[in-house]
Amino acid sequence: MTRGTYSLLENYMLSCMDDSAHDREHVYRVLYYALEIAGTLEDVDYNVLIAACLLHDIGRKEQFENPALCHAAVGSEKAFTFLTEHGFDQEYAEQVRQCIRTHRYRKNNQPQSPEAKILFDADKLDVTGAMGIARTLIYKGIVSEPLYSLLPDGIVSDGTNDDAPSFFQEYKYKLEHLYDRFYTEKAASLAEERRQAAVTFYHSLYREAASAYRDGRDALAGLLSDS
Amino acid sequence: MTRGTYSLLENYMLSCMDDSAHDREHVYRVLYYALEIAGTLEDVDYNVLIAACLLHDIGRKEQFENPALCHAAVGSEKAFTFLTEHGFDQEYAEQVRQCIRTHRYRKNNQPQSPEAKILFDADKLDVTGAMGIARTLIYKGIVSEPLYSLLPDGIVSDGTNDDAPSFFQEYKYKLEHLYDRFYTEKAASLAEERRQAAVTFYHSLYREAASAYRDGRDALAGLLSDS
Repeated sequence: MTRGTYSLLENYMLSCMDDSAHDREHVYRVLYYALEIAGTLEDVDYNVLIAACLLHDIGRKEQFENPALCHAAVGSEKAFTFLTEHGFDQEYAEQVRQCIRTHRYRKNNQPQSPEAKILFDADKLDVTGAMGIARTLIYKGIVSEPLYSLLPDGIVSDGTNDDAPSFFQEYKYKLEHLYDRFYTEKAASLAEERRQAAVTFYHSLYREAASAYRDGRDALAGLLSDS
Repeated sequence: MTRGTYSLLENYMLSCMDDSAHDREHVYRVLYYALEIAGTLEDVDYNVLIAACLLHDIGRKEQFENPALCHAAVGSEKAFTFLTEHGFDQEYAEQVRQCIRTHRYRKNNQPQSPEAKILFDADKLDVTGAMGIARTLIYKGIVSEPLYSLLPDGIVSDGTNDDAPSFFQEYKYKLEHLYDRFYTEKAASLAEERRQAAVTFYHSLYREAASAYRDGRDALAGLLSDS
């Protein structure tokens, strides 16, 4: 890829994410992970891969404003339109579109090409380890969701079987189960290296919160009187 | 304290924080930590301590809307006014006001009473360990600040000497240096128990981010051509 093409795509990506430092950082990490994964494979089309990585989340804003929209679907169409309008050929634009369309977990919409599988894996890698914890917490701040829910007896739920959204609920529902869902061996091994940092953090946070409520509620009950 | 008084103060606290799940969770944790710390001390006035804990952050909204305001100063006056208007005596309201006024790090405004020192320590304890990491990340999401800054050569800064706000900057500037600033032995030992979780997380996150940029930027440079 030429530096000129890279800059064109990078600037379009930045223009789609003008107010979110976090989305931007994520895009660069996904690109860098993707190149690391691609380095272990043969016959990767880097022109497709780099474009797909840079543009994979350009539909985020639309989904954030209207949760009924899927950012992968919106982003893939925006990318196709942008590329064809800027003189890239249809076949290339179509390959990039397919990568972006299939980068989310969807049973009926799985990545097919090597580049699509690499993008999928690189994107998921950024939800593993300490980075996955950090990004999830940042998102909870943006959407004002709590760290944890309380069980009916007033103690902290560890997230298991929670219906209400919280950080612990998302950890149990999603973050804990990512590690056997990679297409490439390199991504699976990178994820495995990062896994313990997430597990350790979750258990530490749960222990800190749960012990405060467990001991504190008893102490408080002993200090309150009826009149 | 009677259950009626507790409910009155709790409801006033909740009315001051109507849109932030995180602030609310923090208040209960601070109350519970404070009771744990108080259990190791003698001559603690629990009526003052419980009220001060429940009301210590009721000035947060004012500070968030106008950063020139100090939430400890605003909150202490709101608490004093609320208590005297609800029939509590002046001396009691004044003790609560003093606790709230001195709960931030300020050289010229340090906690004096046992209850003020306990509130200070309990509030700081919630910035230690995994909880301190989680709360800081949530706040970065709320105010749209990044996880890290890049150094001039394009690699990830670990936060040392950073001017620009980021999670790593706050870790290096603030979170790393809390542990020798407690007034009570109990809080210092609880903080020390939690310390390793924060240190481990910071190092894991830095390693994950830094390695992606370091390897990825080189790989990308090798793939881009001038024309």
